[in-house]
Amino acid sequence: MQALDLGELAQWVGIESVSRDATADTMRAAADWLAARLGPMAGRVEDTAGHPVVRGEWLGAPGAPTVLVYGHYDVQPTGDLAEWVAPPFELTVDGDVLRGRGVSDDKGPVYLVVTLLRTLLEREGRLPLNVKLLIEGEEEIGSPHLPGYLADHAAELAADLVISADGAMWRPSEPSLSTASKGLATLSLVVTGAEDDLHSGRYGGTVANPLHAVVQLVAGLHAPDGTVAVPGFYDGIPELSSARRAQIAAVSFDDDAYAADLGVNTVFGEPGFSTLERLWERPTLEVNGIEAGGKYTVIPHRATAHVSCRLVPGQDPDHVLDAICQHLTANPPPGVRVDVQVDAARVPAYTIARDHPAIRAATVALQRVYPGQEVLLACIGGTLPATTLFEDVLGAKTLFFSFSTADEKLHAPGEFMRTRRLAEGVRAWHELLTLLADGPHRLTALTPATRTP
Amino acid sequence: MQALDLGELAQWVGIESVSRDATADTMRAAADWLAARLGPMAGRVEDTAGHPVVRGEWLGAPGAPTVLVYGHYDVQPTGDLAEWVAPPFELTVDGDVLRGRGVSDDKGPVYLVVTLLRTLLEREGRLPLNVKLLIEGEEEIGSPHLPGYLADHAAELAADLVISADGAMWRPSEPSLSTASKGLATLSLVVTGAEDDLHSGRYGGTVANPLHAVVQLVAGLHAPDGTVAVPGFYDGIPELSSARRAQIAAVSFDDDAYAADLGVNTVFGEPGFSTLERLWERPTLEVNGIEAGGKYTVIPHRATAHVSCRLVPGQDPDHVLDAICQHLTANPPPGVRVDVQVDAARVPAYTIARDHPAIRAATVALQRVYPGQEVLLACIGGTLPATTLFEDVLGAKTLFFSFSTADEKLHAPGEFMRTRRLAEGVRAWHELLTLLADGPHRLTALTPATRTP
Repeated sequence: MQALDLGELAQWVGIESVSRDATADTMRAAADWLAARLGPMAGRVEDTAGHPVVRGEWLGAPGAPTVLVYGHYDVQPTGDLAEWVAPPFELTVDGDVLRGRGVSDDKGPVYLVVTLLRTLLEREGRLPLNVKLLIEGEEEIGSPHLPGYLADHAAELAADLVISADGAMWRPSEPSLSTASKGLATLSLVVTGAEDDLHSGRYGGTVANPLHAVVQLVAGLHAPDGTVAVPGFYDGIPELSSARRAQIAAVSFDDDAYAADLGVNTVFGEPGFSTLERLWERPTLEVNGIEAGGKYTVIPHRATAHVSCRLVPGQDPDHVLDAICQHLTANPPPGVRVDVQVDAARVPAYTIARDHPAIRAATVALQRVYPGQEVLLACIGGTLPATTLFEDVLGAKTLFFSFSTADEKLHAPGEFMRTRRLAEGVRAWHELLTLLADGPHRLTALTPATRTP
Repeated sequence: MQALDLGELAQWVGIESVSRDATADTMRAAADWLAARLGPMAGRVEDTAGHPVVRGEWLGAPGAPTVLVYGHYDVQPTGDLAEWVAPPFELTVDGDVLRGRGVSDDKGPVYLVVTLLRTLLEREGRLPLNVKLLIEGEEEIGSPHLPGYLADHAAELAADLVISADGAMWRPSEPSLSTASKGLATLSLVVTGAEDDLHSGRYGGTVANPLHAVVQLVAGLHAPDGTVAVPGFYDGIPELSSARRAQIAAVSFDDDAYAADLGVNTVFGEPGFSTLERLWERPTLEVNGIEAGGKYTVIPHRATAHVSCRLVPGQDPDHVLDAICQHLTANPPPGVRVDVQVDAARVPAYTIARDHPAIRAATVALQRVYPGQEVLLACIGGTLPATTLFEDVLGAKTLFFSFSTADEKLHAPGEFMRTRRLAEGVRAWHELLTLLADGPHRLTALTPATRTP
């Protein structure tokens, strides 16, 4: 297999495709760069209602399964430039890592797949199975125009499996696959009192303080032990099986090291569950922010709390939001107005069965690249809305098959990627595509609609 | 009595003496303007460690009492210019009010006294008693350099009574005097978790959220009925006498109108007390702000709550702060660090006896200017640190004798002053000085040190 060309990757990292801030020209330049590297896959840039997508495909294996490779070419803003040891848009080698904005999320992982596909086609004239490619430019801003684009191009993008080059291995110490990602439901609690902020001396003690009301309401969302106190919040979640508990207990994990790494003196969470169980199997309700008043002697006229829930399989986002809404508005404090504003975007948890053929094939592929190492089946605590979208619109499950690692300062200053993961990723993707194409791990072409002509 | 010259007052309002923002030259220009209008009182501007003070005196009544007239020439920032109907630093006549920044707080009330004193001296060659004048330039920023200046000039400023042209009548419907102002003690509660904000998916549910801890701690400061739940908070407050309750109950006050005026659907406060009792006789603990995170899916690494207490006579600010500190830190939640930062500035409540000779004289003076109207004895819910300072350093009580009214948008855009109050103020100050000089309301020259030579 041809060596990866870091100079080429450096060109792509050098295009500042920050989807939140960049000009349309810059975003298109990053898309054009990638499209031009698809070789025989007929790379092209297609418009959406937002930043364009990169498309490509090789459909030369009639009767074979079809996979859709997903990833993104947009990146996060740099954050504080002072925290970068080198300019963020210059790819630099720093010991055994590559540093630069987007190298790990998601340009490196996309680049290694594209290089593999092009090289295979140039060298062998074919791929093990049919491959379509969809690399979007708005992942870091919530993929606002992906649903519309997918709906309009569902037939063209039909596939038996989506393989995502986005996502990340759980930690650097062993290879891992993710079989779930948590859902997301968010809301804001807004409590309003007087028309304006009131002087705390001239009015204090005579009218309700909206911030006191917010604090009372928000404090009621949890029991002191960390359990979510909203009736109905945990509805629908299957009991954690003893088999799954045993699997998780078998994963080497050190609570104290985890706490120390984050700078806290202890872990904390829902009683009756271990840290990994809390992280992978249990839903959360976090108050992300409160906005009200400041350090001046007023009674603020409005206080707002922002709440987000990460959901697990079995939970219905609508039901969860209704339950919280009901809990917050059941006994409104006197003298204030309580409004709950639920956000429209809501994503259920995503899972792919632990014995899904794609998980089995990916496990074998990783075992071949990392001989002698156990392949961990982990979960992603974050939320990847595209997975649900692919399931709903294309009827296809998504396999996360990324070679970035979750500790590589994704979204933060100093983003990096372990250099060795690039070559490991090329080998693993090659193994995976081969396994899915034929033999005991062959992917079933699920519906006639997804077969290539 | 000579008519007040609104053109002259307009000049002073035109000098933008915003103590928080103005240049030293602008502040001095405002001080110079006033000093030049003191006529025979030997007006002059004296340096302090901050903005200068205006001084003056007429001590031509040997054996008579001495009063120190206090006020300030600095003003608040304008706030949002879009909310002003006319430029804030142009004095405009709007129906029966004068509008402009500082016209009510405190340039109008100071100007009317200075005009009275100068006119009396020019016309009659004397005042009814000895008068000293101290008009400061830092009241709106907490008078940070007044303690030092007073300590250095205590002998020169000695007086039998301080009369403050600052403060305000309670409401426009009748004349009123204030016999108390509340004290102030403030602190910030800071709860810290991890070293950085954490992704709520990747870490949620496994470590304590500092904002949850702040909310639990702050919610514990009050009972749901509005009572302060901090043991020791109410220590030292004498029981409200039935006589005082009867006096307050006799004041015409409409809870519904008060609530409607503020835009809330009901009043709210400590059970067992009326709104006026809460306002005038009971201490308060208000959470003025919370700063933490925002509307994004993180676990904030720090959450801060700002708390202020308005204190009543009998409460010791140190004891109150200790009690709150103890309450907040007694049972720290796991996994976070709790720090309470008490602010150094702390002011006990101030009172002047309701039968103090100055209150009696001021009542008579107001009755003469407002014949047939009852003079209300009210309290100021706000805090005026200078009163405690004058008591401590000069051994003199302070009488609030202001002709602004508390509803005149002090500190807010659109500040105004009722035009008629200027002339009423001149007449009332003339009556007051005359009453204090001689007859049944004569002020006792309390100590030899305060007598003029």
